[in-house]
Amino acid sequence: MMDYARATTIEEVKDLTVEELDFLYDEDANSIGMLLAHFAAVEKVYQIVTFENRDDLTDEEVARLNPALDLGRPAQEIKGYPIDYYLTELAEVRAATVEKFKTLPDEWLFEQTPFWWDLPANNYFKWFHVFEDELNHRGQIRLIKKMTKKEKN
Amino acid sequence: MMDYARATTIEEVKDLTVEELDFLYDEDANSIGMLLAHFAAVEKVYQIVTFENRDDLTDEEVARLNPALDLGRPAQEIKGYPIDYYLTELAEVRAATVEKFKTLPDEWLFEQTPFWWDLPANNYFKWFHVFEDELNHRGQIRLIKKMTKKEKN
Repeated sequence: MMDYARATTIEEVKDLTVEELDFLYDEDANSIGMLLAHFAAVEKVYQIVTFENRDDLTDEEVARLNPALDLGRPAQEIKGYPIDYYLTELAEVRAATVEKFKTLPDEWLFEQTPFWWDLPANNYFKWFHVFEDELNHRGQIRLIKKMTKKEKN
Repeated sequence: MMDYARATTIEEVKDLTVEELDFLYDEDANSIGMLLAHFAAVEKVYQIVTFENRDDLTDEEVARLNPALDLGRPAQEIKGYPIDYYLTELAEVRAATVEKFKTLPDEWLFEQTPFWWDLPANNYFKWFHVFEDELNHRGQIRLIKKMTKKEKN
C-alpha cells in the first residue's frame, strides 16, 4: 500500500515544471513542491517514532524537519527546485525505511504504544498513517494541478 | 483502515451547511457534497465487482451510479442536500459492505482476478482502493473547506 501510494504520487508529479511545483493558488496555499517535501518529512518523523520507539520528537528534530513538516506560510520558502530534487529525497528516505523494515519481524507491526490522545496504536497503524497522509495530499496535488492549468489558460 | 478513513471524512464534514456542501470553487469543480455522493457510488461499484465476482458493471449500473461516480460538471446537479442526506447514504452502503464481509472467509481477501490493465488484483487491493480514493478526496475536501472560508471572508 505504501508502494502503491508512492507510485501514484510520482505518476502525478513526474513531469511538472519548477513553475508548476511552486504554484500557490492563494497566499496561504501549499504548493505541490511543499507537499512533496512534507511527505519526506513525515516519513522521517515515523522513522524516529517507530524505529527508535520514541513517543515524541526533540525540539531539534522538529526544527530540522520544518518548515516541510508543518507546512503553511513558513514552508512557502520551499521553492525553485526541479522535480528530481523532491523525488531523490523521497527515494532516499523510503530506501532507509525499507532497509529497516527488512530487519524487523512481522510481530513488530503489532507492537503498541500510547499514541494520539494517549490511545494505543501499533506500528502498522503508524505506517498506515504515513501513507494515508500521502494519499490525502495526493488528492490535493491533483486539485492544485487542475487549478494551475486554469491559471495558465 | 476503512473505518478510520470514514471517521476522518465524517469529522471533516459533519458540521457543514448546505451552502458549504454545494460550494464550487470554479465552474469545473466538484463540491464537497458531490465528493460525498461519489464515496457511496464507488463503494457500490466495489460491492458489485467483488461480491458478485464481476469484472465490469452493466451500462444500467453505470447509469444508476452516475453522475456521482464520474463526477465533473454533470454531477454538479447534486446539490441542495443537508449533510445528513449524505451521511445516511454513506452509512447504509457501508452497513451492507460490512454485513457481506462478515459472511466471507479471510482467504476471500486474497482471491485474484484480472483487474486494471488486465493485471491480477485481489479483493484486499480492491477494497484498499475504495478507501484510498476516499482519502484522496478527503484531502480535497480539506482544501475546498479552506477555499470556502476565504470566499466568505
